[in-house]
Amino acid sequence: MADGLDPLSRIRVVLVAPSHPGNIGAAARAMHTMGLTHLVLVAPRSFPDPEAAARATGATAILDGAQVVATLDHALAGAALSIGLSARSREFAGRVLALRDAAREAIATAPHGEVALVFGSEMSGLSNRELERCALVATIPANPEYASLNLAAAVQVAAYELRVAARGGEVWRAPRFAPATADEIAALHAHAERTLVAMRILDPAMPKRLLPRLKRLFARAGLEKEEVNILRGILARIDQFVARRER
Amino acid sequence: MADGLDPLSRIRVVLVAPSHPGNIGAAARAMHTMGLTHLVLVAPRSFPDPEAAARATGATAILDGAQVVATLDHALAGAALSIGLSARSREFAGRVLALRDAAREAIATAPHGEVALVFGSEMSGLSNRELERCALVATIPANPEYASLNLAAAVQVAAYELRVAARGGEVWRAPRFAPATADEIAALHAHAERTLVAMRILDPAMPKRLLPRLKRLFARAGLEKEEVNILRGILARIDQFVARRER
Repeated sequence: MADGLDPLSRIRVVLVAPSHPGNIGAAARAMHTMGLTHLVLVAPRSFPDPEAAARATGATAILDGAQVVATLDHALAGAALSIGLSARSREFAGRVLALRDAAREAIATAPHGEVALVFGSEMSGLSNRELERCALVATIPANPEYASLNLAAAVQVAAYELRVAARGGEVWRAPRFAPATADEIAALHAHAERTLVAMRILDPAMPKRLLPRLKRLFARAGLEKEEVNILRGILARIDQFVARRER
Repeated sequence: MADGLDPLSRIRVVLVAPSHPGNIGAAARAMHTMGLTHLVLVAPRSFPDPEAAARATGATAILDGAQVVATLDHALAGAALSIGLSARSREFAGRVLALRDAAREAIATAPHGEVALVFGSEMSGLSNRELERCALVATIPANPEYASLNLAAAVQVAAYELRVAARGGEVWRAPRFAPATADEIAALHAHAERTLVAMRILDPAMPKRLLPRLKRLFARAGLEKEEVNILRGILARIDQFVARRER
């Protein structure tokens, strides 16, 4: 595709706290075989590292261009759709899709905004808190008795599905408005939390399930930019009433 | 599936002259994650090998049961369908299919006879003579500028496609809560409208797009009963602040 509109160029691979540099290199190679280029590393144990370079073989350019950031929030900044990979069954905020369907959604979203594919660490995958930052969970169908794909192997399968989704015929989509980015949604969550605390609906010492439930609802909806603005406008107005009351 | 009719149990993975024992272990792990069990090694450079065992992690049973044979002919003995994996475009007498279609054919054949999936060595893939022994060539769609998947990564993608072909995209589902009824949602809309008017965010004479946008957002999310209760609780609390202000 011309004009930088290749959807694969709008997809970033985020590795959260990878502990083996060899896996980072192998993941870069896996990305390169499928035409993905943008790698983001959240607090890697060791990077750069000669073992990463060795396993990357022909994909050193991806390692050279990799972003290293301190937190998952930084990694998701500007992403319109964040997809967390998870093998385990668990309570999750948003929708859970098989990888193939998630890849199709990623490719359909890419023309409208950046997409992040988020992989947890080798030992424990993504935590519930990390998954909460994702709008969508993708699951790689696997042997229920042993679903533990190597990190780079999971990146390979996901990158493969993205390539097949990108190059194998367009699917029809309902008209879309601009999706909100991960940082816009994080700011909305933070604002909502402040306001709910000020309203004394939410006790910061005992937050319970109120905030997770709200985040889950919004994740399921897939918020648009304008909707975030509307909700923040309502929160700001509530803030005025609460502040007057407190004076 | 009962009676040994699981098609995945009828598929063998054949690695021809693998040179890195680590790749053998990683391939075994990849097979195990997708429910494949039968591994055949043709003239491996080193096997068994501690590096293979290390990379296999939970899949050592596959290594323990692996057959080591001297020639590809031995590896293909008894197979009703042999599928060679090849990234390179080349002269080949038989049919060339994309991996996904080849996987479907493998699963369709498995009830009638054993299927072999044949991978070449790390450096050079399958030779023309080796490919000639296969009835079908499967190609993994890849970046034409760098189609060199790691051996175990290629096994992972192929095993994944076989599993999806055999099982469909079955994944775990996030727990679902009871959906809200139409009348509960209508009552929520009415409450939200009253509150927004009282907050003077919404002018009842000129409602514009605020309320339709909120309704649209909630419709997209598919509200649950408990979420309606949470939202109405928040609205009721806002109402208190607004009423105090108005007094």
